[in-house]
Amino acid sequence: MSLPDGFYIRRMEEGDLEQVTETLKVLTTVGTITPESFSKLIKYWNEATVWNDNEDKKIMQYNPMVIVDKRTETVAATGNIIIERKIIHELGLCGHIEDIAVNSKYQGQGLGKLLIDQLVTIGFDYGCYKIILDCDEKNVKFYEKCGFSNAGVEMQIRK
Amino acid sequence: MSLPDGFYIRRMEEGDLEQVTETLKVLTTVGTITPESFSKLIKYWNEATVWNDNEDKKIMQYNPMVIVDKRTETVAATGNIIIERKIIHELGLCGHIEDIAVNSKYQGQGLGKLLIDQLVTIGFDYGCYKIILDCDEKNVKFYEKCGFSNAGVEMQIRK
Repeated sequence: MSLPDGFYIRRMEEGDLEQVTETLKVLTTVGTITPESFSKLIKYWNEATVWNDNEDKKIMQYNPMVIVDKRTETVAATGNIIIERKIIHELGLCGHIEDIAVNSKYQGQGLGKLLIDQLVTIGFDYGCYKIILDCDEKNVKFYEKCGFSNAGVEMQIRK
Repeated sequence: MSLPDGFYIRRMEEGDLEQVTETLKVLTTVGTITPESFSKLIKYWNEATVWNDNEDKKIMQYNPMVIVDKRTETVAATGNIIIERKIIHELGLCGHIEDIAVNSKYQGQGLGKLLIDQLVTIGFDYGCYKIILDCDEKNVKFYEKCGFSNAGVEMQIRK
């Protein structure tokens, strides 16, 4: 499935700080992040790779993506897929989709599903045997439309 | 909470391949893993670090632990906590507990809870603002005893 006219998708960059922060606020607290710290984060995300026995195939640990409105160069949506190397499933790879957010001005245009499709494609291209995510009960139907099914309960502990 | 007499906990090592594989079989398919591949995995897990602005504090990306029976040097339980660096919560850290397994011969001795307590301690010592895990409905009560609470639904997609 391709993006609607007027949008493109790319990896997150240093210059996205302000707009990504704005977009992520629909999810939770973001807080104050300096351009310097964000630049270090992007550098770390761009350098962290996952060990792969096939050395020709580079697997990025973090895959932070943004969907951008071409007309205004505005970030319309963002999400990440983190790749984990396990022992089970013959040293298998598991993808963790995290921090999906669609800017309130761009909701209802199907961008969320397109973002998920792209992140799933990234994970399966790397060879993940499964991709998981945690969501609120109210979003289960949306993720079912994206091809996901209920797999269990998310539990958390906070300090 | 400390381990019962006769057990100790340590980071997983190369030599644990056979026993860890045996322990993980209670969870799912492990498949065939050569000592050479496992050695590469352990090396990767021991070298992968998470970017931290406080450079004096090294944060390990993967923290694979084993509880060992001192008498027989047998792996009684294993589990991992993977550390993710996010944007939200001021470039916060989230811990992901994965692949918890207690060897069938050692079940019913409280080792599972001690393992979870240790992994939670590791995550909070690194500064995680939250630690999450996914489990079957039937294990919710166990994780509640470990201090966790229900946070949402786990969704998955497989190739």
